[in-house]
Amino acid sequence: MAPAGRPGAKKGILERLESGEVVIGDGSFLITLEKRGYVKAGLWTPEAVIEHPDAVRQLHMEFLRAGSNVMQTFTFSASEDNMESKWEDVNAAACDLAREVAGKGDALVAGGICQTSVYKYHKDEARIKKLFRLQLEVFVQKNVDFLIAEVSLHVEEAVGCGSLKESDRPVAVTMCIGPEGDMHDVTPGECAVRLVKAGASIVGVNCRFGPETSLKTMKLMKEGLERAGLKAYLMVQPLGFHTPDCGKEGFVDLPEYPFGLEPRVATRWDIQKYAREAYNLGVRYIGGCCGFEPYHIRAIAEELAPERGFLPQASEKHGSWGSGLDMHTKPWVRARARREYWENLLPASGRPFCPSLSKPDD
Amino acid sequence: MAPAGRPGAKKGILERLESGEVVIGDGSFLITLEKRGYVKAGLWTPEAVIEHPDAVRQLHMEFLRAGSNVMQTFTFSASEDNMESKWEDVNAAACDLAREVAGKGDALVAGGICQTSVYKYHKDEARIKKLFRLQLEVFVQKNVDFLIAEVSLHVEEAVGCGSLKESDRPVAVTMCIGPEGDMHDVTPGECAVRLVKAGASIVGVNCRFGPETSLKTMKLMKEGLERAGLKAYLMVQPLGFHTPDCGKEGFVDLPEYPFGLEPRVATRWDIQKYAREAYNLGVRYIGGCCGFEPYHIRAIAEELAPERGFLPQASEKHGSWGSGLDMHTKPWVRARARREYWENLLPASGRPFCPSLSKPDD
Amino acid sequence: MAPAGRPGAKKGILERLESGEVVIGDGSFLITLEKRGYVKAGLWTPEAVIEHPDAVRQLHMEFLRAGSNVMQTFTFSASEDNMESKWEDVNAAACDLAREVAGKGDALVAGGICQTSVYKYHKDEARIKKLFRLQLEVFVQKNVDFLIAEVSLHVEEAVGCGSLKESDRPVAVTMCIGPEGDMHDVTPGECAVRLVKAGASIVGVNCRFGPETSLKTMKLMKEGLERAGLKAYLMVQPLGFHTPDCGKEGFVDLPEYPFGLEPRVATRWDIQKYAREAYNLGVRYIGGCCGFEPYHIRAIAEELAPERGFLPQASEKHGSWGSGLDMHTKPWVRARARREYWENLLPASGRPFCPSLSKPDD
Amino acid sequence: MAPAGRPGAKKGILERLESGEVVIGDGSFLITLEKRGYVKAGLWTPEAVIEHPDAVRQLHMEFLRAGSNVMQTFTFSASEDNMESKWEDVNAAACDLAREVAGKGDALVAGGICQTSVYKYHKDEARIKKLFRLQLEVFVQKNVDFLIAEVSLHVEEAVGCGSLKESDRPVAVTMCIGPEGDMHDVTPGECAVRLVKAGASIVGVNCRFGPETSLKTMKLMKEGLERAGLKAYLMVQPLGFHTPDCGKEGFVDLPEYPFGLEPRVATRWDIQKYAREAYNLGVRYIGGCCGFEPYHIRAIAEELAPERGFLPQASEKHGSWGSGLDMHTKPWVRARARREYWENLLPASGRPFCPSLSKPDD
Repeated sequence: MAPAGRPGAKKGILERLESGEVVIGDGSFLITLEKRGYVKAGLWTPEAVIEHPDAVRQLHMEFLRAGSNVMQTFTFSASEDNMESKWEDVNAAACDLAREVAGKGDALVAGGICQTSVYKYHKDEARIKKLFRLQLEVFVQKNVDFLIAEVSLHVEEAVGCGSLKESDRPVAVTMCIGPEGDMHDVTPGECAVRLVKAGASIVGVNCRFGPETSLKTMKLMKEGLERAGLKAYLMVQPLGFHTPDCGKEGFVDLPEYPFGLEPRVATRWDIQKYAREAYNLGVRYIGGCCGFEPYHIRAIAEELAPERGFLPQASEKHGSWGSGLDMHTKPWVRARARREYWENLLPASGRPFCPSLSKPDD
Repeated sequence: MAPAGRPGAKKGILERLESGEVVIGDGSFLITLEKRGYVKAGLWTPEAVIEHPDAVRQLHMEFLRAGSNVMQTFTFSASEDNMESKWEDVNAAACDLAREVAGKGDALVAGGICQTSVYKYHKDEARIKKLFRLQLEVFVQKNVDFLIAEVSLHVEEAVGCGSLKESDRPVAVTMCIGPEGDMHDVTPGECAVRLVKAGASIVGVNCRFGPETSLKTMKLMKEGLERAGLKAYLMVQPLGFHTPDCGKEGFVDLPEYPFGLEPRVATRWDIQKYAREAYNLGVRYIGGCCGFEPYHIRAIAEELAPERGFLPQASEKHGSWGSGLDMHTKPWVRARARREYWENLLPASGRPFCPSLSKPDD
Repeated sequence: MAPAGRPGAKKGILERLESGEVVIGDGSFLITLEKRGYVKAGLWTPEAVIEHPDAVRQLHMEFLRAGSNVMQTFTFSASEDNMESKWEDVNAAACDLAREVAGKGDALVAGGICQTSVYKYHKDEARIKKLFRLQLEVFVQKNVDFLIAEVSLHVEEAVGCGSLKESDRPVAVTMCIGPEGDMHDVTPGECAVRLVKAGASIVGVNCRFGPETSLKTMKLMKEGLERAGLKAYLMVQPLGFHTPDCGKEGFVDLPEYPFGLEPRVATRWDIQKYAREAYNLGVRYIGGCCGFEPYHIRAIAEELAPERGFLPQASEKHGSWGSGLDMHTKPWVRARARREYWENLLPASGRPFCPSLSKPDD
Repeated sequence: MAPAGRPGAKKGILERLESGEVVIGDGSFLITLEKRGYVKAGLWTPEAVIEHPDAVRQLHMEFLRAGSNVMQTFTFSASEDNMESKWEDVNAAACDLAREVAGKGDALVAGGICQTSVYKYHKDEARIKKLFRLQLEVFVQKNVDFLIAEVSLHVEEAVGCGSLKESDRPVAVTMCIGPEGDMHDVTPGECAVRLVKAGASIVGVNCRFGPETSLKTMKLMKEGLERAGLKAYLMVQPLGFHTPDCGKEGFVDLPEYPFGLEPRVATRWDIQKYAREAYNLGVRYIGGCCGFEPYHIRAIAEELAPERGFLPQASEKHGSWGSGLDMHTKPWVRARARREYWENLLPASGRPFCPSLSKPDD
């Protein structure tokens, strides 16, 4: 199977899902650009789209090459505090960058809205609503292909979905929840039902929990929808970190957040396993969130290449299941050039003084 | 201390070291660009400088912003197998890219030579020597500021250093060895002595071993030079991975190499500790090799900012010791905005079914 | 508080529990005597009471000194396969040994019945019932103070309890279940209800799961009884091993069972924590099963000494919370002579090549 | 190979070693009897031989059954502080107990001398020497078969060995050192040489370090003796704990000492490996120290049964390499009834919040 782009005119997100295609999301912007030097941890804001557009474009390009079908705009969220003057400029520029790169391959542009500020819960609801509407205006003006709202709290989610429908674009809504449900103890199944009733065409989870945990949540969402007799496309964009020890509010409470998460980073093989399980569960929009590097996205695209019929461009530079090692001078390294080896590897941390799990703070 | 570039005309590498300055090297190209989708693991060759110059330029930029004073050319090594036609073009382009980015800040260009092919030990010595001379010609023509030769085997190293001196540029030679010495059981101390006698102005280690292990090797090199009454500047560019369980030939023999190293990635705090210890040991050229991401280089620059008198540009986007968390809504996350917290964190792997150490293959 | 026995005439088991006393059970016989060389793993039979009575008496003595108020007879179970001729002799001798040692302190004798053979599920129900009645006859003849039936399967448990009541002695029934319930998915709460309805005065769990897990099960049993408006005394006798990774059928499925469980052995401090939590949960019969050594039983007695008003005899040889270290020549060892030290210790395994959790076989 | 005692008249220790026999030592008294409730941690004194002779006799019996050829007297050491009045009585009684049990099998009695108090370094040298002579008098009077002196400090060791020779009995001297040598930086090789020159017939190490570490020390001792052209029998009695993270002074400095060592306890399979390696190294007196339970000694005897020609008595109750599991009802437990399974098992700690190694205190 030769690496290849997907030729022809672009289908919309719902057409793709309707026809059974796998849509591959993109990965981590905030955490990845923090490590590259363009985002400040704590603030987590996207002014880099103006200050350092090359860096943002480059990351979009890497995800596109890795197989992403969606370029999510790297935008200020509606409730962002330090938005003032440059807020509109940043959001507009983010749309342009996403569109520019999307045009180089088979990718759509998704306007990304995160209604809940990570660091400050904003009391001034009127102001938020106004900004929210302004943000939608930018997205409509810049003609994004669809919208992704990432929400965590129950009340806002309904409001958000209602407003988003006015944009006359397909709406995906994902929640930052784990199997235990949202902050008001609404189960994932019930959450999914409410999201669909509020107008979301695609529902799922993003961020806060690792791949395995997020798939458990997706299973509960799927079952909830089935019980309610509702239909929606499923979408999952988990952390690129292993978090079996998370509490209800996810990785933010882990002592390693955000500057000591390295030992938890998933391998490409972990992600291939995740992609396969997501697919088997019926999820067709499969991507990642914080910690998902371009090679993780490529791992999704490689795992699902048999179903999709093609490999992503970046597979030009990647031998499937370690096959690039088959010429190594050392026979024991050559012996790693096979699927069974990497599927069964239990990678050591190199940190014998560290535990394998943490207790979440609170 | 405000982030700032280093103003004024550029001093040469030896002038800097002579005057007691700390020189910060750059980090990982092969492994980092592999994850970004531009280098093929197994081949580990730099054709991206021609195929995807934006990606290579961007990584140079990130290291520059992070505080690197050296842009090492991303060049084919002299004994590279698949060099043929495009070999010269790639090496020339690599020089241009390094020079372009170096010109945007206080960085020198180092011509990077790796005499030993990672994957194939080349028997045709005459051919290697010829290519080696050709490579030097490119470096001279492109006017690199100095040369860095990364060598692992004893015999070649002497040959290499001899030839390099002809270039009339300062020569740094680093070996890929650990505390146990080279493949012929020459101790690090003796290796350092021979390197200096062969003409190297700067000696040290790079790659193959993690920060702690590499500093042990540096200590032995330093003691060897002292015993021999020789003087040279010391340089260290270790892996960005923890490898306390490495055997004599380093991380290549670890079962996790190269696709399962994630849990071993150093945190920024690990690197600050490393930078401080390197400095205390008397090393003044401090950088990284495989696995060193831009934020690791920034960690060196931040740790040594008191000695250097300035912070790197990328510290615009980084609060020292986690201070960017001091506005978080959760009090237990705010409590992480302090040095003591991160210095004492023992980060969990999130992988309870994995061990903490591995046995090297062989 | 000076170590002291409990003076005066012996109260029965129900009188003790009725008056609010803490009753301390004994610990591990099969696994402990296996390590001492008197029980064969795989068979797990008690012929040592005849072959090596000194060894069995000694272990009873150690538990008595450690604070046990119950000497459970070390008897063949009713469905034991290899019982034939010596079966009755062994059971009678086991009663005599238990009675002999119980007479040296404040302990009762409990006739111990394990209806389910560990290794073979016996089909010949008529034979089992006959042997079961024979066993009860021995217990009555030897005048045990009460009966403890350890059951795991739902159906038998009811039968067993019915028969036991005929003995005219108080009956305790414990199940080898975890929080997920019995093999037919009957929840712990429902199990407890059925046991009480079948005539058990004391109900709880034993074996198969570690202390933390067993307390979770006890909580569910307690809640089940409360919901049903039933009253019974609660009893817990868990493994002395940490088993957070157990599946539904407990430690037998863990790959370490039975010859590699060493790294899982609880410390005395783990057991003090367990005893306190059991007490706080309202459990008043607190002991142990496989893996509970005499010092673990002592840890229960020391933790609950404030409530009971006295220490066990074996505390003559034990400084509370490590206080015996306060004269050590090394200051850093003296610094361990305090409660806070041991309560917070996270003990290393000394096994960096081993994981911290296992996947159960099945 | 049927379990069997070793018939016939007893040969002396040197005759046995001279003829190439493997001599199996005994195991842990202080730590084992502490867990059974008869020794106080911190004091670590043997008054149990008078207070609870049954408990001490029982432990001797277990080691005898497990295959020990040596019953080492459980005696106060010469420099013990709290010895006063009962000191002589205890030492005499300890000899009687050891002799009584030795008479039941093929075991010799060794008078055990530990010159260095664990907890207090005694300044009154004259008093120590007097007590030391008194102790030797007891051993001579009680007619022990040979002497074992366990020493850790360099100076005393010479003195001790000199005095011991006066007893006209073979003398074994073991040091509590690791590969780094004694407290005055005398290497293991040099230590061994000095011990032999001072009159020891058997030299080696005991206590303080785990099996693997102790074998490294033995290798150095052996090489030292070979270099010096000296001959002596080699003896090893390590901890039954894994201590790869020990510093120079051994397990006392580990944070887990002495009440949190459980996760470090060796399995029987670890000990079989140790026994085989000790044998291959040429060591013929193989036993254990703190943490060595009877089943660990049995593991030595089982591993070396092919060489010795017989199994120990306690193997009546032990199927080799887990063979006792071959009738289990669960097929996956039956699958554990084989050597390969247990040799390759990497046992989990069940403690995901704990590290695998510790840093020694000091």
